[in-house]
Amino acid sequence: MTGLKFTKMHGLGNNYIYVNLFEERLREEELADLAVRVSNVNTGIGSDGMILIGPSERADFRMRVFNNDGSEAKNCGNGLRMVAKYVYDRGLTDKDQFQIETLGGLVEAKIQTGSDGKVEEVTVDMGPPRLLKKDLPMLGDPESKTISETIDVDGVPYTITAVSMGNPHAVIFVDDITQVDVAAVGPAIEFHPLFPERVNVEFIQVVGRGEIIFRVWERGSGITQACGTGACAAAVAGILNARLDRKVLVHLLGGDLVIEWKEDGHVYMTGPAEYVCDGVYYG
Amino acid sequence: MTGLKFTKMHGLGNNYIYVNLFEERLREEELADLAVRVSNVNTGIGSDGMILIGPSERADFRMRVFNNDGSEAKNCGNGLRMVAKYVYDRGLTDKDQFQIETLGGLVEAKIQTGSDGKVEEVTVDMGPPRLLKKDLPMLGDPESKTISETIDVDGVPYTITAVSMGNPHAVIFVDDITQVDVAAVGPAIEFHPLFPERVNVEFIQVVGRGEIIFRVWERGSGITQACGTGACAAAVAGILNARLDRKVLVHLLGGDLVIEWKEDGHVYMTGPAEYVCDGVYYG
Repeated sequence: MTGLKFTKMHGLGNNYIYVNLFEERLREEELADLAVRVSNVNTGIGSDGMILIGPSERADFRMRVFNNDGSEAKNCGNGLRMVAKYVYDRGLTDKDQFQIETLGGLVEAKIQTGSDGKVEEVTVDMGPPRLLKKDLPMLGDPESKTISETIDVDGVPYTITAVSMGNPHAVIFVDDITQVDVAAVGPAIEFHPLFPERVNVEFIQVVGRGEIIFRVWERGSGITQACGTGACAAAVAGILNARLDRKVLVHLLGGDLVIEWKEDGHVYMTGPAEYVCDGVYYG
Repeated sequence: MTGLKFTKMHGLGNNYIYVNLFEERLREEELADLAVRVSNVNTGIGSDGMILIGPSERADFRMRVFNNDGSEAKNCGNGLRMVAKYVYDRGLTDKDQFQIETLGGLVEAKIQTGSDGKVEEVTVDMGPPRLLKKDLPMLGDPESKTISETIDVDGVPYTITAVSMGNPHAVIFVDDITQVDVAAVGPAIEFHPLFPERVNVEFIQVVGRGEIIFRVWERGSGITQACGTGACAAAVAGILNARLDRKVLVHLLGGDLVIEWKEDGHVYMTGPAEYVCDGVYYG
């Protein structure tokens, strides 16, 4: 039997099927359907989506992220860490710092290895946040920012701070994260007419000036265990609202990330990356 | 990296991680935890559970079925078809008919190959149904059958027919399958005090005397795309209640099965078996 070689990896439970385009050939027109099929846990492997790792003309590597509904994502913070681990562990680079091209722009990754020489933790330069409505995109004055702006969601007011980390996020601070019905409010905001390209939705409970609890509704994927760009957007939103200091420990469903918005204006995300399995897919 | 070799297969979307014990060694005390871990779609591969294929002292092969909650199942009708395909396609047998030992007893399987020499469809002799309450087990007169008996479920009456196919099933006929809240009623009956070892729950809409629509709540796994023993139990329950003829086309969420309760008293199930992937699991 022939099939498609893949690796499943996860970062904090945010899990993707990775395909190495240095070895495998895929046709552009089959990518969306393939992402849907491999992601289906009943008849496929099961995942949040599919990420392609390939050569880039502008950076060391290029990654393309497909959600489990077949739509292509601009970026994926957790996915970047997995890609960094993959290319180093598999000998596609011997540099400990390199650039990855995404649909949302170029990203710098820095790996830290363990005693076995394999990558243990990855810090990703997620770049500067972009805050103007035109950057999200979000309807309204294109040159204005959305910081603690109250919007109407099916008759209920929600106060959001909007942050682009290459992809758009609407961050909402709540007093008690356990009282939020993410599966109901998330899609209502994702498809809110204010966001012409839809939006990721984050619910944040502040524990202290350097610590938050985080829940996410991801555009195209729904509730996931973790969302790297969402954690960055949440930290930035908290700092903009003077609720957080510049280095934040983020507790996601799947585990912890450390997000730092440095004086250079860039947001740095540090977290783990894990292999699940290598395999050959026949579907 | 070392890891555990596995194959993911599905029958009508009912999907398991298969481990070949002729090649892999597992310790008894790790099996329940391993089944939970490989089944988790976020940090593992993602499946309804794990099935071990190994040698038997009483039959050609032995299969052990672990649900995704770590509990061990007596039998799994869909899993039997995958096991039959696996052992034939991989050359573990060259017979087209052979016996498989399960926790619920010995089972005969007969394969049909396609033009490529691989198994296309499998007919499994699921044995005779057992109908006495002591066979389920179910509380009440141990020597009596449960055919259209009304039970109280949290104050609501449900009329059930109870059938053991090696594992226990409570079959409920409904007029309109789309009106059933399987996720609510299923667990309420699974954990009903009448069933000391819990029970699988099937909801059936009769389309014609040889055709039904089928939905299932599986003990230990919840809603699944298909349940082979459940389809058998449903056909038997329909025949016992004189609603169905002896050969029944069953429409499950994941596809179709043909169930025949023959004059020899045995129930025969015919359906497809598909590979998803082969791989090595590192978790």
